[in-house]
Amino acid sequence: MDTRNIIGYQYAEGDNFTFRAVDPSSGTSLPGDFYIATLTEVEEAMNLAWKAFSEYQHIGKDKKAAFLRAIAEELKAIGPELIERAMSESGLAAPRLQGELGRTTNQLNMFAALLEEGSWVEAIIDIAIPDRQPIPRVDIRKMMVPLGPAVVFGASNFPMAFSVAGGDTAAALAAGCAVVVKAHPAHPGTSALVAGVIKKVAEAHGLPEGVFSILYDDGYVIGEALVKHPNTKIVTFTGSLKGGTALMKMARERDEPIPVFAEMGSINPIVLLPLALEKRAEELAKTFTDSITMSVGQFCTNPGLLLGIKSTGLNRFKTALAEGIANVNSATMLTQGICLNYNKLVSERLTSPEISVIAQSDKLNSEKVNQGLATVTEISAVDFLANEKYKEEVFGPYSLLVVADDAHQLEQVLNSLQGQLTAAIMADAEELPNYKQITKQLAILAGRVILNNPPTGVEVGNAMMHGGPFPATSDSRFTSVGTSSIKRFVRPVCWQNWQEDLLPDELKTDNPLKIWRLFNNEYKK
Amino acid sequence: MDTRNIIGYQYAEGDNFTFRAVDPSSGTSLPGDFYIATLTEVEEAMNLAWKAFSEYQHIGKDKKAAFLRAIAEELKAIGPELIERAMSESGLAAPRLQGELGRTTNQLNMFAALLEEGSWVEAIIDIAIPDRQPIPRVDIRKMMVPLGPAVVFGASNFPMAFSVAGGDTAAALAAGCAVVVKAHPAHPGTSALVAGVIKKVAEAHGLPEGVFSILYDDGYVIGEALVKHPNTKIVTFTGSLKGGTALMKMARERDEPIPVFAEMGSINPIVLLPLALEKRAEELAKTFTDSITMSVGQFCTNPGLLLGIKSTGLNRFKTALAEGIANVNSATMLTQGICLNYNKLVSERLTSPEISVIAQSDKLNSEKVNQGLATVTEISAVDFLANEKYKEEVFGPYSLLVVADDAHQLEQVLNSLQGQLTAAIMADAEELPNYKQITKQLAILAGRVILNNPPTGVEVGNAMMHGGPFPATSDSRFTSVGTSSIKRFVRPVCWQNWQEDLLPDELKTDNPLKIWRLFNNEYKK
Repeated sequence: MDTRNIIGYQYAEGDNFTFRAVDPSSGTSLPGDFYIATLTEVEEAMNLAWKAFSEYQHIGKDKKAAFLRAIAEELKAIGPELIERAMSESGLAAPRLQGELGRTTNQLNMFAALLEEGSWVEAIIDIAIPDRQPIPRVDIRKMMVPLGPAVVFGASNFPMAFSVAGGDTAAALAAGCAVVVKAHPAHPGTSALVAGVIKKVAEAHGLPEGVFSILYDDGYVIGEALVKHPNTKIVTFTGSLKGGTALMKMARERDEPIPVFAEMGSINPIVLLPLALEKRAEELAKTFTDSITMSVGQFCTNPGLLLGIKSTGLNRFKTALAEGIANVNSATMLTQGICLNYNKLVSERLTSPEISVIAQSDKLNSEKVNQGLATVTEISAVDFLANEKYKEEVFGPYSLLVVADDAHQLEQVLNSLQGQLTAAIMADAEELPNYKQITKQLAILAGRVILNNPPTGVEVGNAMMHGGPFPATSDSRFTSVGTSSIKRFVRPVCWQNWQEDLLPDELKTDNPLKIWRLFNNEYKK
Repeated sequence: MDTRNIIGYQYAEGDNFTFRAVDPSSGTSLPGDFYIATLTEVEEAMNLAWKAFSEYQHIGKDKKAAFLRAIAEELKAIGPELIERAMSESGLAAPRLQGELGRTTNQLNMFAALLEEGSWVEAIIDIAIPDRQPIPRVDIRKMMVPLGPAVVFGASNFPMAFSVAGGDTAAALAAGCAVVVKAHPAHPGTSALVAGVIKKVAEAHGLPEGVFSILYDDGYVIGEALVKHPNTKIVTFTGSLKGGTALMKMARERDEPIPVFAEMGSINPIVLLPLALEKRAEELAKTFTDSITMSVGQFCTNPGLLLGIKSTGLNRFKTALAEGIANVNSATMLTQGICLNYNKLVSERLTSPEISVIAQSDKLNSEKVNQGLATVTEISAVDFLANEKYKEEVFGPYSLLVVADDAHQLEQVLNSLQGQLTAAIMADAEELPNYKQITKQLAILAGRVILNNPPTGVEVGNAMMHGGPFPATSDSRFTSVGTSSIKRFVRPVCWQNWQEDLLPDELKTDNPLKIWRLFNNEYKK
């Protein structure tokens, strides 16, 4: 593991200031002194990224796909070392991290397949019609091209799948962007191992130097400089509302404002309908005990808000949920900061007069530090509606049950919420048609609308929408998971009246790449 | 012509303050006292828009298409009256406005056809795979849904095609958004005639009240209030950089930041390659004389920057262009403000030591006021590179020829430019392969890259990209012309594990709408 910044194919040591990763389960520092990047190195990385971008964007799709596939292969090869380091840096358990490594390599291969198939560029061709009346139609052909160098911020809660070679990087590289990663300071070792792989593969594949760089910093200076650099054309971020909105502000106040895709907070409301509760209160309680506490609740899709109407079914649900939550062992949270914040917010809620406790686990592992204890609390719909603060995310194994008197009040609660990543409804098939208004509301509120599934467990595929109205994300028109997430990194360009042999292959009349195109208003290959 | 604000199906007179339109060719006011809207009316229009949106978005595609087609029909029916009023309000000539009305009705019909065909929603379906290892795949289905109420600002330079029933309104209504138009104060009468048609058609088609409203104001108060209203979910604007960036700032500083699509300034560089000049200098001069002065140069795609390398061909081009420009009659500009600004900027350039005059028309029509006189000036590449101010748009019949010593200097000039709507190259087929670097640069610079056509004349079709990197537009990922412009108004939503009968028709397994979809990773109908 090389602990230096990587700028193109060179290592850089900044001004020799370093920091160490901390094992959150013990609070002790881990081996490896990571070099804090300097502003000069930001300049170097971004200049190299621009130079690389101007070449890399024109490299053929199969070569780009081979690059992504090779990264996936090499990551698998260092799997055991990577998972061990990630465990010690994140406190996450081995099976979860094995799953995450699988997701990371799957994402890289998924984008490779997307490139090889080729239709994602949305080629549209309108052939000239010289004799059209009253004026001739000129030949116009459009496709997606990459935006330019992308700055990708590593996420604390996904040390692999949303960090150095995660979904953002894979999508950006697939799109044809050069990538500069700002490593998350909570897992620099995991980041360094992955970055070393990308550097090695890029070099071996003869790609232009600067197609990938990574910089370390345990503060905010380097991230800010990266966002403000004129060569940066798009920024992606997964994290807190505070962090995301700060980046949005920096990006829009540049001379040239640039898009930021920030995936931020969400409380992911779950509507529990009466008949579903009546028929399967205990089963639902089990589902949500698991969903609320999975990976110590550190998911953006954690079900932080349960919504039900007073009934004996709801009471049974509460009893079973209380039992479940009380029996969940404490587990290590990602960082001391996250754990302190979780404990602070939970304490505030536990001492609020409007809020009562349904359950709090007392199964504390006292041999470890930074332990998150599962907690579920309750509030009336009236009190919830009167207090904006309960709409805020509590990042960790926590959920708030809002109890409404009737369906109308439940609708009011939904109406009062801000944008969400997901909104789910637990319903019996029989009762669902009576709640059409509520199901419509869910689609206005969120990017993913779920029936009878918990929101955790994000499928990485073509149809996934992982994004939603602000403040869930900075731009509800894009997803950060799945093949469509490549659209964040591209813009359309059209060529008018162009010479056939100088057009991109995707737009040549005889369709040498055999991709799906809208050709004279007809979809065909 | 009713001169009152329209809020849903009601007329509103605000506080009885009014303003009049001005005939720019005479400077005298035109009949019709237009009622300035109030903040209360903004509130009413936006509340009604939200209510209408929640119903209108779920109305079937054929009903929406019929609505758009009927607007087009009714506009045709009032064509003569509309064109007469638009002529007196804009100073534009009848043939141009006849063309613009045709474009306006074509746009409405184009979006109707897009809805009827139906594939634009980008439906993606991944069917459940219950026995997938290691975990089952859940059923996920995604499509585009409308963002919410849209605020559309009328444009001064397109009183029909980019105003009340223009491209933005047509795309927004097609997407399923409710629309509130802020009428441009330069052509309130044209706006009122068109708005009356939309109101009448919406009512006749039984659409929810509030699907369309229009408010008048000769200042900035109402526009600002509309952008800041919490029910507004997207804003579109075509106009100046100053106006567009002001709206961007308002929109991002809201509690819930919303997207603004602003199409702003562009100088649309034209590269004139040596062999093309050698072979057809005079023909090119004729093409650009027309393109620079068409509609008094008041197009966002006006060729404001000509770029050539010193040669006898370039000298012949200059001579012919000078002759052409000198013979162009003056014509009325859209407003006094636009004409004053044009004259001010042209004077500044004419008195700049770095700039020399190629030609200025002296064919002033002294019987009319607000006359724009065609002007073309020249500067060396070195002086151009040293002065940022010459990169700014001069809105009107003006262009600046930048003379480079060689291809390298020409590349430097291109590199120094900000984002553009279009970038064109005039080239002989023989020489083009020698300028690959320059043609690549054009695609980084602009949204539309043109070979041997002038940039004026924007084809409204599937393949058009009318947009580009900032400051050409606020977001290079979208176009404001053509069928793809509907994407500005939508966001994806996915339904997970949903009940078949409650899914939108676009996502039902048996594809009742027979649209193109990505179904289990395969494009099919």
